[in-house]
Order: sequence, then structure tokens, then C-alpha cells
Amino acid sequence: MSDHRVAPVAAYEPPYYAVVFTSVPATDREGYDETASRMGELVRRVPGFLGEDSARTPGGLSVTVAYFRDLAGIERWRRDEEHRAAKEYGRAHWYERYSLHIARVEQSRSFDRAPARPHPDGGAPVPSEP
Amino acid sequence: MSDHRVAPVAAYEPPYYAVVFTSVPATDREGYDETASRMGELVRRVPGFLGEDSARTPGGLSVTVAYFRDLAGIERWRRDEEHRAAKEYGRAHWYERYSLHIARVEQSRSFDRAPARPHPDGGAPVPSEP
Repeated sequence: MSDHRVAPVAAYEPPYYAVVFTSVPATDREGYDETASRMGELVRRVPGFLGEDSARTPGGLSVTVAYFRDLAGIERWRRDEEHRAAKEYGRAHWYERYSLHIARVEQSRSFDRAPARPHPDGGAPVPSEP
Repeated sequence: MSDHRVAPVAAYEPPYYAVVFTSVPATDREGYDETASRMGELVRRVPGFLGEDSARTPGGLSVTVAYFRDLAGIERWRRDEEHRAAKEYGRAHWYERYSLHIARVEQSRSFDRAPARPHPDGGAPVPSEP
């Protein structure tokens, strides 16, 4: 059974914004993990930040999607000084190439086979069988 | 050096649409790879399909982003009979949970350290150093 703490960012009520960042890493990854962790801390302080999901196929693409309530939050994050410095360093060292898409979410849906909820006995939620 | 054939879907001229599908796999993955491959074939036939990027962190989330020129393509893909059957089977077997976001891309950017282009000698393109 999968770890119930692993969950994608929820499907919020539209409208909200998604920033899709898809990248191919370069060979040089020195300092990347520390900076990525620091950026994760910083973006959480941006008003209207809703969460982010990231996956990386070993040897392949990385796909990160960050969600914001509005464009103002995205713009604020874009202008953050520490973030700007990290992006500049990343282009020089960490990324072979990337695409970035800023998009307004118009529809959202979600599925949870076993919605997290308190069990009457205080135990784990019981999965609903298909 | 990274494989130059690995490249994210390009940053098209907006507007276009992104469908973000973020999932946590269930334990049962039987038949998943074959169906995913078949869905990949089918979606390429949808008019206005622009491409898709997918990454999966081992033991964690999968993030897939498919791009379409317009909502009509997304709707057509949503109603495809084989796709519908696959989604139904996936909810019963393959996914613990997922979120789906359909979003209109308003801005896009890309970066390529070594744009693919024919080299005068017919060799590999020379990376531009930072």
C-alpha cells in the first residue's frame, strides 16, 4: 500500500494558476539540492502559494508544477532576489534546457481511493474497495 | 553531458492548454505500462495535441503534463472510448489518488544552453558556455 502521506497538491476551486517547469538537468548538479531546498522554503512564504509537486525520472526529465492563487503571487516570486540569483546560476550550471508555462486553471478534479479522515476508533482510514 | 534527444515539450506561443495530471500509484500496476503506452499512441492522434512530458520519482509522485492547442482537443480526448475505459480501470486498480488541472497557458518561456542546429561539419552542436 502506498504511503498515505504522499499526496499531490489538491484540486482547488478554479480559478488559480499553475506554473509548469520542465527541465533536462546538465551534468553539473553541485549545490543544486541545497538551493532547491532553500527555494522550497522561500516560495512557501509567497502570499497565495498553494503548493507544488515535483517528479524526476532518473536520467530524464524533471517536471515541477507550482500552484498560486493569482498572478500577483507568481510575479512576486519571479522578482524575489534570491530566486533570481538561483535562476541565473541554474541557467549557467544546472540546466541543459527547460520550458516554463504559466497557466490559469479553469477546471480541476481529484480522485482519492481512501480519503484521509479520522477513523471512529482512531485507527487508519479504511480504503474503499473498487 | 545530457542526451540531446531528451527535451521537454517546447514553449509554444500562447494561448494553448496544459493538462496537469499528478498521481500517486497504487500497489497494483499490472497492465499499467502497456496501457500507458497505448494511451500515448492514441493521444498523438488527437487534433491539436502538442506533446506531453512525464516524470516519475521512484516511490513517489508521477507528474504528467499534456499540451493541447485548444479545449476542443482536450474534450475530444476526454470522451475517447478507449481512454475512458483506461481511466475507469486506473481508478479501480492503478491509482491511490490523483489531481487533474486543466489550464490555459498565458505565458511561456524556454531556455536551451545548446540549441539543436545543424553544425557546418555535420557534427554535434557546440554548447554555448555560460
